[in-house]
Amino acid sequence: MASGVTVAIVGVTGAVGQTTLKILEERKFPVKSLRVFASERSVGKAVTFKGDTVRVEKVAPEVFKGVDVAFFSAGSAQSKEYAPRAVRAGAVVVDKSSAYRMDPSVPLVVPEINAHALRGHQGIVACPNCTTIVTVMPLKPLHDAGRLRRVIATSYQAVSGAGVNGVEELRRQTLQWARGETMTATYFPHQIAFNVIPHIDKFADSGYTGEEMKLVSEVRKILETPDLAISPTTVRVPVFTAHSVAVNAETEANLGPDRARELFASFPGLKLWDEPAQNRYPMPIAVEGQDDCYVGRVRQDLSLPNAINFWVVGDQLRKGAALTGVQVAELLIR
Amino acid sequence: MASGVTVAIVGVTGAVGQTTLKILEERKFPVKSLRVFASERSVGKAVTFKGDTVRVEKVAPEVFKGVDVAFFSAGSAQSKEYAPRAVRAGAVVVDKSSAYRMDPSVPLVVPEINAHALRGHQGIVACPNCTTIVTVMPLKPLHDAGRLRRVIATSYQAVSGAGVNGVEELRRQTLQWARGETMTATYFPHQIAFNVIPHIDKFADSGYTGEEMKLVSEVRKILETPDLAISPTTVRVPVFTAHSVAVNAETEANLGPDRARELFASFPGLKLWDEPAQNRYPMPIAVEGQDDCYVGRVRQDLSLPNAINFWVVGDQLRKGAALTGVQVAELLIR
Repeated sequence: MASGVTVAIVGVTGAVGQTTLKILEERKFPVKSLRVFASERSVGKAVTFKGDTVRVEKVAPEVFKGVDVAFFSAGSAQSKEYAPRAVRAGAVVVDKSSAYRMDPSVPLVVPEINAHALRGHQGIVACPNCTTIVTVMPLKPLHDAGRLRRVIATSYQAVSGAGVNGVEELRRQTLQWARGETMTATYFPHQIAFNVIPHIDKFADSGYTGEEMKLVSEVRKILETPDLAISPTTVRVPVFTAHSVAVNAETEANLGPDRARELFASFPGLKLWDEPAQNRYPMPIAVEGQDDCYVGRVRQDLSLPNAINFWVVGDQLRKGAALTGVQVAELLIR
Repeated sequence: MASGVTVAIVGVTGAVGQTTLKILEERKFPVKSLRVFASERSVGKAVTFKGDTVRVEKVAPEVFKGVDVAFFSAGSAQSKEYAPRAVRAGAVVVDKSSAYRMDPSVPLVVPEINAHALRGHQGIVACPNCTTIVTVMPLKPLHDAGRLRRVIATSYQAVSGAGVNGVEELRRQTLQWARGETMTATYFPHQIAFNVIPHIDKFADSGYTGEEMKLVSEVRKILETPDLAISPTTVRVPVFTAHSVAVNAETEANLGPDRARELFASFPGLKLWDEPAQNRYPMPIAVEGQDDCYVGRVRQDLSLPNAINFWVVGDQLRKGAALTGVQVAELLIR
C-alpha cells in the first residue's frame, strides 16, 4: 500500500466525521482516494479534503468496492447495516458506533492501551465511546502499576458528544438567552444552557443510563478485567467540546499521588497538568483541539489509603473519537 | 418577643444577604425593626423590605445595640471582627461565613439535622457552606438508617455560590460570546462560560481545595461522625443558581435504592424526583428558587453491595445559605 489506500467515511457530515477528515489530513494519512458518505438528506453537499472538493454520496450496500479502510461514524443502525457489506467488499472497518463494541469477535481498541487486540480481527474494529476513552487512558497506567480494584467515575460531558445537533442546541439556547427570549429545548431532554442534565442515552431498569453502562462494559473489555468494579455517573454540561471526568481509583498496591503523577506523565497520549499553585489543571477550554488527554488534580483519597482522586479532560471529538479511529487505521495499514 | 425582634443583616448587598431579606419576608419572620449593613462602598444604597425602603449603613463595632438577631453574610473577616461585638451587645449571631464553623464552642447547624446542637450556644451559631448543606441533607437519613461508612461527593457548583460577582462574570462572558467578542475572566481564575473549573477556594498542599476540605470537616461535625471517610471533588460549572452533587454513599447496613428512596422522600427538607422513564430528575434550572433539596438518580452502586449512587440538587442561595440561616433564627427566637 505504498501508494496509499482508498478511504471511505460513512457519516462524514457529523461531528466525528468532520473531525476524522481533519485528522486524516493533519496526520498525513496515506489517502490515495477518498469517498465520503452520509444519509440521503446530505447528498449533494460536499466536503473539502487537502484542498479538493469531495461530493457526499448516499451510503448503499454496493458502494464499498475498492475501499481499503472505512470509517463509520453514522450511528449503530448504519454500522449494523453497512459494515458487514464493507468487510465483504474487502475493506477493514473502523467503527465509531456502539454496534460492535461488545461483540466478542470484534476488538475494542485504544491504540496506546491494547493495540495487541487488533491481531486476528475479522474486518471490523470498534472504537470505544468518547467518555470511555477519556476515562480509560489514565486508568491503564494505574492498572499496570497497581492493579485496579474499584473505579468511581463522574463525568462532565460536552454537548458535541451528542453531535452537531447538541452544539447547535447550546448555541441557539444561549443566543435566545442573550436576546431575552425563552430558551427552547428540542434535542436534549431539557434546557442545557446554564443547566446540567444527569441523563445521557436511555435509562435501564437499574436506573443507570446507556452512557453509564457503556463506560462500565467498555473499560472492562479494554483493560481485560471482566470483573473490575466500576461505579459511573454521566452528566451533560453546557460546554461545547471536551469531556471532563472526576475519577476515584482504588488499586491493590498503594501507589500514592506522586507515583500516579509519574505514571500519568510517562504514558503515551496522556499529559500531566497538575500545578494547582499556578491555577494549572485541565479544563475543557484548554483541552479543546488537543490530541492528548490531560490529567490534573491528582491527590490522595482522604477516605481510603490505596486510592487516589484525579481529574482527566479529553477532546471527545479527537482522542475520544476521530483521532483514536485514525490511530487504529494507521496500525491496520502498517 | 411577641411583638417581634430587631434584625440586623450584615452583608445585605451580597447574594446571600439579598436572599435572606426575601426569605424573612416570605416566611413572615417577626421583624419588629430591620437594620441593614454593608461595607463602606455600599453606604447610601437602599434595600426594600415589605415595601419599605431601608438604607444601608456602614457596619461598625457599635451598631449592634438593641439588635436581637444578626445575620452575617459578609465574609469571614467581617464576621471575625463584628460578630463578637454583636454578641456582646446582646444579639444572637447567625453566621453564614466560615469564620466560626469549626470552632468547637460554636454549633454548626442544619435545622432538619441537628437542631439539638443549638442548646447552650454562646451567642454565635454557624451555618455550613452551601455545598455541605446540599450534600449532608440526604446523607443524614442514610446515616440514621444504615450508618455511613464512606462518602464520595463530586459537585457541579453554580456561579452564584461565589456571590454576585460570579453571576456577573458568567453573564458578561456569555454576552461577550454572543456578540462575538473575546471573553474576559476577571473574577474566576479562568473563563467559566462554556467551561468547567475544578477549583473552588484556595489549594492546600494536599492538593485539595478549601471548598473540598470544608465539605469534609463540616459534614463530620454536623453528623457528629468525626472519622467519617469522605472523598470530595468540587467543580464550578456555568450555571447561575443551584448546586448539584453526585454522591456515592457506602453504609454499614445494606439499604438498597428502594429503601434509600423511602428515606429521602420522608426526610423534612428533601424531595424525591426519581422517575427516569419520565425524564424526571433534579436539575439546577428546576430547583432554582425552591426551598427543598431534590434527590434523584438513586441506584445501587454496581461496584459495592452496601453502597448507592444518587444525585442531589439544592438552591445554594436558599437552602444552601439564607433559608438555613433564617430557619436557625426561627429556632433561636422560639
